[in-house]
Amino acid sequence: MAAPLERKMKVWELVLRCLVGGFGAVAAALVVTDSQTRTFFSLERRAKYTDMKALVLLVAANGAAVVYSLLQAARCAMAMARGGGALVMSSRALAWSVFSGDQLLAYAMLAATAAALQSSLLGKLGQPELQWMGICSLYGAFCKQVGAGIACAVVAGLAAVLLASFSAFNLFRLYGGNKGSSTTRNGATWY
Amino acid sequence: MAAPLERKMKVWELVLRCLVGGFGAVAAALVVTDSQTRTFFSLERRAKYTDMKALVLLVAANGAAVVYSLLQAARCAMAMARGGGALVMSSRALAWSVFSGDQLLAYAMLAATAAALQSSLLGKLGQPELQWMGICSLYGAFCKQVGAGIACAVVAGLAAVLLASFSAFNLFRLYGGNKGSSTTRNGATWY
Repeated sequence: MAAPLERKMKVWELVLRCLVGGFGAVAAALVVTDSQTRTFFSLERRAKYTDMKALVLLVAANGAAVVYSLLQAARCAMAMARGGGALVMSSRALAWSVFSGDQLLAYAMLAATAAALQSSLLGKLGQPELQWMGICSLYGAFCKQVGAGIACAVVAGLAAVLLASFSAFNLFRLYGGNKGSSTTRNGATWY
Repeated sequence: MAAPLERKMKVWELVLRCLVGGFGAVAAALVVTDSQTRTFFSLERRAKYTDMKALVLLVAANGAAVVYSLLQAARCAMAMARGGGALVMSSRALAWSVFSGDQLLAYAMLAATAAALQSSLLGKLGQPELQWMGICSLYGAFCKQVGAGIACAVVAGLAAVLLASFSAFNLFRLYGGNKGSSTTRNGATWY
């Protein structure tokens, strides 16, 4: 691949990692700090994110994503600053570990976001068949902030999905170039 | 890549596609056919999968996975029967479409399974903070069958995740072999 394109992809990888980290942090912060107290007939009730296990999972997944993204962004920036060639020996092992981490991150974030989305839809709409009542008519401000948090988590999750494809590209293209045209033909006949 | 390994991977791809299709079909069938009627004080109540929107989503995702897997398995088997070389021209486009489809399938199945798992845990345990009662003490047989369906969906989802990596490998290795050793060095200096 041409060197300018190579450099552009490095920049994009860094941007995506910052997106995952940034939106993940905002999502976790919005959900964790969310709380609303209401009084019903002199009985005080407080809604908080720990009332819904799926929101706890969302916070955990996004917290882990922030830490992981910071570490990976640092590696990324270091590799860009250092320039070429120094890491040839360990590149396959490194590419495998980055690939595994990014795949795990993307699937974990997507699963946590899907579960939280499902929970919060139940919280909003309820499930009349099971006599579960929606709570957003009572805790409107709480629900709005959770909604904003989940929206951020969706953005972070989509960036993580893109990143997973990036690192798959960076790993698997290392397996294409060893035997020249014969390999290319083999690759093509797969389909 | 060596030809025997190439052939082995084709067989594994076919096996994985059959796993996704098979377990997806069993999961959808278990959930769709699930129903339990109980009588409370001469009032008849019937539990069915449409009472929980997440189960409807699970059935839809697994149904789509079955159709997609059948089509892909047929393509796979045809390519294996035909042997090598006939599809060189269109291989990149084909690899891109298979890659996109498999990625979409893996993420959709995982998200649907996570949402269904979350819903069914709520159904089993309830959420006392929100006055949501668990229903599995009332509809035990219904819950058990849903649980078996979700377990099958988890297996199908894991197979879909593996498949997504397979097709990423098949796509991206096509981008490694065009410039010989210089490309390999470029790929390595990415990290």
